[in-house]
Amino acid sequence: MNKTALQNLTYGMYIISSKDGERFVGCTINTAMQVSSEPVIVSVCVNRSNYTNECIKKTGAFALSVLSEEATAKTIGMFGFQSSRTVDKFATVDYQLTGDGLPVLKDGVCAYLSFRVVNSIEIESHTVFFGELTDAEKIESSQPPMTYSYYHRVIKGKAPAAAPTFGV
Amino acid sequence: MNKTALQNLTYGMYIISSKDGERFVGCTINTAMQVSSEPVIVSVCVNRSNYTNECIKKTGAFALSVLSEEATAKTIGMFGFQSSRTVDKFATVDYQLTGDGLPVLKDGVCAYLSFRVVNSIEIESHTVFFGELTDAEKIESSQPPMTYSYYHRVIKGKAPAAAPTFGV
Repeated sequence: MNKTALQNLTYGMYIISSKDGERFVGCTINTAMQVSSEPVIVSVCVNRSNYTNECIKKTGAFALSVLSEEATAKTIGMFGFQSSRTVDKFATVDYQLTGDGLPVLKDGVCAYLSFRVVNSIEIESHTVFFGELTDAEKIESSQPPMTYSYYHRVIKGKAPAAAPTFGV
Repeated sequence: MNKTALQNLTYGMYIISSKDGERFVGCTINTAMQVSSEPVIVSVCVNRSNYTNECIKKTGAFALSVLSEEATAKTIGMFGFQSSRTVDKFATVDYQLTGDGLPVLKDGVCAYLSFRVVNSIEIESHTVFFGELTDAEKIESSQPPMTYSYYHRVIKGKAPAAAPTFGV
């Protein structure tokens, strides 16, 4: 068995965000996929130790900033390698609010999506949340979506220990 | 709300396979993602009306052929636009068996993975299966993984009505 075969699964790159009271929280993920077209339901996967996971459970809502190839290593690392428990990640980036009042990045994104949680399941270290689409916008002038492969190959990025793909 | 924003989610292209007794079944999907690293668990999403869905539920096992950019429109369409209920899809392609005895394609693939189902959840039209990795191989000389975007842009492929991304 050669586990490096898992490197051939394809992902995008996203900032998933939510809030804790009036405070915005978020982290970098690579796991989002549409699982139903009518209604539109998207699944995302967030480590149970992540503060953002707790906040999604409390609020029942999350947003995705879909990163483009213009997203910087600095932004991805800032959201990926520290915790919203101790850092106000949205203090140093430009953002706007979705129709649900959740923050999404203005720079280095090609689209944003907002969701209301309709189901979830705990799978080992991670929670898979299922969200029904409540808001969506596309940034027409943006670069293409950043793939997880592009992040590794071009940005030379790494996966933190809490990532589902850690060690692969 | 602009639902075309969903087109910016990134996916790969896969043939998911299983069996019904001694008969091999399978279909094209774009939805596979790793959700846990220890143990390795991958989620896939298959329409409930698909014969392959029934067979995964019966056998508790599935395999993924990870398609490379060399995969042909013919193979993708053959697996994607007809049903294993009436067609023996593996009769016209070269395949080998994973350690669990499930068929995976020999041509136009960059890796294959085999799984035992450990959990599942019904989400509207689709079932999300969670599989623990039981076998994995990478084809070193292959082309890169085919992305769903590449399938649309270069292969000029479409999504069938049963796809989670249909109409997006």
